[in-house]
Amino acid sequence: MKLTNDQIFEIKEQQSQENKTKRVTAPELEKILYEALPILDHGFIRVVDYMGDDTSIVQAARVSYGKGTKKVSTDSGLIKYLMRHWHSTPFEMCEIKYHVKLPIFIARQWIRHRTANVNEYSARYSILDKEFYLPSPENLAAQSQNNRQGRGEIIEGDQAKQVLDLLKEDAERTYKNYETMLNERYDGSSINENGVGLARELARMNLTLNTYTQWYWKTDLLNLMNFLRLRADHHAQYEIRAYADVMLDTLKKWVPITYDAFMDYRVGGTEVSANGKKVIKELIAGKKVSIEDTDLSKREWNELMQAFDLKNNLI
Amino acid sequence: MKLTNDQIFEIKEQQSQENKTKRVTAPELEKILYEALPILDHGFIRVVDYMGDDTSIVQAARVSYGKGTKKVSTDSGLIKYLMRHWHSTPFEMCEIKYHVKLPIFIARQWIRHRTANVNEYSARYSILDKEFYLPSPENLAAQSQNNRQGRGEIIEGDQAKQVLDLLKEDAERTYKNYETMLNERYDGSSINENGVGLARELARMNLTLNTYTQWYWKTDLLNLMNFLRLRADHHAQYEIRAYADVMLDTLKKWVPITYDAFMDYRVGGTEVSANGKKVIKELIAGKKVSIEDTDLSKREWNELMQAFDLKNNLI
Amino acid sequence: MKLTNDQIFEIKEQQSQENKTKRVTAPELEKILYEALPILDHGFIRVVDYMGDDTSIVQAARVSYGKGTKKVSTDSGLIKYLMRHWHSTPFEMCEIKYHVKLPIFIARQWIRHRTANVNEYSARYSILDKEFYLPSPENLAAQSQNNRQGRGEIIEGDQAKQVLDLLKEDAERTYKNYETMLNERYDGSSINENGVGLARELARMNLTLNTYTQWYWKTDLLNLMNFLRLRADHHAQYEIRAYADVMLDTLKKWVPITYDAFMDYRVGGTEVSANGKKVIKELIAGKKVSIEDTDLSKREWNELMQAFDLKNNLI
Amino acid sequence: MKLTNDQIFEIKEQQSQENKTKRVTAPELEKILYEALPILDHGFIRVVDYMGDDTSIVQAARVSYGKGTKKVSTDSGLIKYLMRHWHSTPFEMCEIKYHVKLPIFIARQWIRHRTANVNEYSARYSILDKEFYLPSPENLAAQSQNNRQGRGEIIEGDQAKQVLDLLKEDAERTYKNYETMLNERYDGSSINENGVGLARELARMNLTLNTYTQWYWKTDLLNLMNFLRLRADHHAQYEIRAYADVMLDTLKKWVPITYDAFMDYRVGGTEVSANGKKVIKELIAGKKVSIEDTDLSKREWNELMQAFDLKNNLI
Repeated sequence: MKLTNDQIFEIKEQQSQENKTKRVTAPELEKILYEALPILDHGFIRVVDYMGDDTSIVQAARVSYGKGTKKVSTDSGLIKYLMRHWHSTPFEMCEIKYHVKLPIFIARQWIRHRTANVNEYSARYSILDKEFYLPSPENLAAQSQNNRQGRGEIIEGDQAKQVLDLLKEDAERTYKNYETMLNERYDGSSINENGVGLARELARMNLTLNTYTQWYWKTDLLNLMNFLRLRADHHAQYEIRAYADVMLDTLKKWVPITYDAFMDYRVGGTEVSANGKKVIKELIAGKKVSIEDTDLSKREWNELMQAFDLKNNLI
Repeated sequence: MKLTNDQIFEIKEQQSQENKTKRVTAPELEKILYEALPILDHGFIRVVDYMGDDTSIVQAARVSYGKGTKKVSTDSGLIKYLMRHWHSTPFEMCEIKYHVKLPIFIARQWIRHRTANVNEYSARYSILDKEFYLPSPENLAAQSQNNRQGRGEIIEGDQAKQVLDLLKEDAERTYKNYETMLNERYDGSSINENGVGLARELARMNLTLNTYTQWYWKTDLLNLMNFLRLRADHHAQYEIRAYADVMLDTLKKWVPITYDAFMDYRVGGTEVSANGKKVIKELIAGKKVSIEDTDLSKREWNELMQAFDLKNNLI
Repeated sequence: MKLTNDQIFEIKEQQSQENKTKRVTAPELEKILYEALPILDHGFIRVVDYMGDDTSIVQAARVSYGKGTKKVSTDSGLIKYLMRHWHSTPFEMCEIKYHVKLPIFIARQWIRHRTANVNEYSARYSILDKEFYLPSPENLAAQSQNNRQGRGEIIEGDQAKQVLDLLKEDAERTYKNYETMLNERYDGSSINENGVGLARELARMNLTLNTYTQWYWKTDLLNLMNFLRLRADHHAQYEIRAYADVMLDTLKKWVPITYDAFMDYRVGGTEVSANGKKVIKELIAGKKVSIEDTDLSKREWNELMQAFDLKNNLI
Repeated sequence: MKLTNDQIFEIKEQQSQENKTKRVTAPELEKILYEALPILDHGFIRVVDYMGDDTSIVQAARVSYGKGTKKVSTDSGLIKYLMRHWHSTPFEMCEIKYHVKLPIFIARQWIRHRTANVNEYSARYSILDKEFYLPSPENLAAQSQNNRQGRGEIIEGDQAKQVLDLLKEDAERTYKNYETMLNERYDGSSINENGVGLARELARMNLTLNTYTQWYWKTDLLNLMNFLRLRADHHAQYEIRAYADVMLDTLKKWVPITYDAFMDYRVGGTEVSANGKKVIKELIAGKKVSIEDTDLSKREWNELMQAFDLKNNLI
């Protein structure tokens, strides 16, 4: 990640604000507010605004549940209860806004989460930065043999070099041709003073999908957790998981009680189907069960065994 | 509106907070934060949290539009431009949360705006307050003769008295029977110490629709304006307009530049259909136009003439 | 449920349609299309339109997953896979529309599911039917002692009679006064030929919450399942569950493969938290576990034991 | 647009279906159901399913408005009334589903309409087709001088040739290197039988933004019109407008009455701000008005004059 001096200055300026407010604040999150947290080779996440904290969830739930609860439950107990029973509306009462720099092919995955607000840097209007994602060697993986949408072994040696060279050369060449068509360089200088440039909304089509874009992305706490549950999961593509992992840290700084409940019930938990429950019940009763005795597919069987660390039962 | 001493104390306590933050603040809105602004006979609106201000809209739009704009447009010019051209996503970057007390029949209109977050006080869980809406005399109107969903003349004299008596007696009686069925009074005391009460989730069905409920309601600035455009309009039912009018004031305190653009382009503006444009063009050209020369219905014609204050042309 | 002759005629007329289409159809659902399926004392559900069937889910998923899958998975295998891994977008490709008659206090619960399209019969515009919900004796339950939002023992004898009498009298009286204020009876006849009536938008506030309303409600298959998972659950209030149960039947007739996967993975399944997994693993390993050895609350412990039918372990 | 024989066969097969249904049908739309309507050089739109027609809007509105309307309004009058007064919920009662093939940079604009359901062909899972968009000569435009997100003069001659050559060469080269990295050709054949290929989810990042993708896209009628209002507008980028124009035709075949109202009130209509209304009123009164007499910016002034064809007043 490389910020210009102007960008560094603007961030520092925002961080030097010291405003008074009657709103609740999240002190740990304030400490990193506006900071560009680096991700991948040129990307970042910045928390640029937020609303509410753990107590806002309790406050909203208690309107909904009435004055009686106050004595019975501690905040933590109530938040755990809400999480466990999918009483989701109180979690919608907190909001967070990120500024994100990310490769376009990851932006295309990300945007599928529709319940967020987005303002993306417009390549119809402006010239995109000359930055593109190149995987680090340990993330250069072969196509998985048994999972059509996953990765297998690491690619090394000559083939790794070839792949990285191709990615680099193609991104650089297409970007250079983008400038040629625009008749303008990424720093705004003209190439041919008397020439005209192709419309930006057209020239951008020549860029490769690893070019970086950026956006403001705002969502409520419930939908943030839905995003993180899917994108911080090991099934998610590494490049989006890198973002989700940093966002998990910001979640912890923002709403620590909710974070704990989220890790316990969602991230660390598992779902068991009706057919899966039968198997677990037999196992608890001390019986031997094999897949033939069940209505599970091989894949389901293995997922169930893995969920409960029964490695000897994998088939 | 009647707040208990406990409620007054809790509001004062929230208002006495003085937290430091690096986030932007809206000083005029801070002044009335948490305050219960009275509406109708027992209702209120309280702003309980917010995120962002006018500059947040500009900031989000500039990510989307690139660094070039900064010099060209002032904030106000950009916000007006965005409003005029329905570039709506930057307005979604601000968020506000209200605590509202309102009659159930109004809550049922309100909830139809789906793009908001809501936590309502639960009558499955708690006993509703003994408060119900009775219109003030100047709002006691007859059914309109020419608009099936509107009001006509004010009802006065004996009939007004009769209506108010019926509303009051029925609300009081059904509430009293609600307590009887619950075997519990609104203050939590038992009626028959040894008896059992009907489940709250059932007993509530006996209440009338003018009973007050309350909720936390959170929305972004774009959807707040969509709500206000419809509900602060003269077609809206008076009782919901009373809420919308107070919310318009909070909008002005929160984002004054956006408020001005909203009043100019949305609230004070008008839409003209393709057929309507033909009429206006003729009128500008100094021609006489009557409805027979047009493709407008009588209702459309009158709406168009009213929009441009051409009262002599009404038919 | 009591339909007028006109309503019966209109339903029959719709059912007698025989149109040709190139779209897919769901033959079992066609058989009950437009039929008013009775619920509670005066309510009903009618399926009035639908789009897509089980194959539409597969078709959409295969665009998303590419041509490769066709040979590997049968439709059923793919649908189960999608359900298990929360690949939810293909289920959004089917749509269904219901006409529902339901008590207002249930409508208020129902409407909290925001991702649906709704048109409700307007009491600003028209007079509501003279119908209100009265629970049948076996559903007249006392407030639960250990669950603030649940029901306990059945109420019987004199108290039951008293409750039903109060509900009936109050609903009838408030409806009668509604007519008086409107100066119009439910059948449209005037009460006082020369008098004026109170505006409908005001008079309606006198009605009790068990008055029936009706609406068109349209949603996609994914959101229908979200609705049913919550509302066909035993935690849901009986009166809304009665609707959800009938809707489950229509789901089965519409998309039988999806229905099976839904019953296995969602309705019949369970979620186990990270802390809960530790307990289950110990139990499978044949160890004795008591709540003191865990991080579970009493309530969590019991929910876990119940999920796996370990009744002896309840505390 | 080039369909394979298999694709042509599959479309014909779908079109040969003749199912019976009690649902309403849209006969004109049935005629083109499943047909691939060509757009740009390799793109298409196919209507693959729909639900409801003009009468469904009326039917839903009448539940909401009660039985009284039936005699008063014809269907057309009611639909126009609903459109004019933004009574939008009845339009949500119709649904349509498209299969679309489109360049990725257009897909990125399109997806910003969040209120639709989408399943995109997954390049994590499958290999993208070897097809990329090249503008036709008449669409090769220079950057506009006065509109930062628009197009100016057509680019011709040598520069046009250079631009097209660059776009073509870069797309072909990056696609070829995509195959090299995958160790697999677009037709599924291996390049090096003994080698391994880079994971698909990584290799795709080398493709340029004019590569074609495809998706299933489903939306309700209201949101379709919102999409078309913005994307069939002359401010929209030509490439997305090409899709919107074809979709307008399908709208007309599907719901002809709604289409007419949409063209009159939305597409052909205009909005006039409060400040703009003052100007129009003066002009109707026969007064001379110049921009100095108003609160309009130069841009607003010109937009207003253009809306009413007052070309002499442009400044």
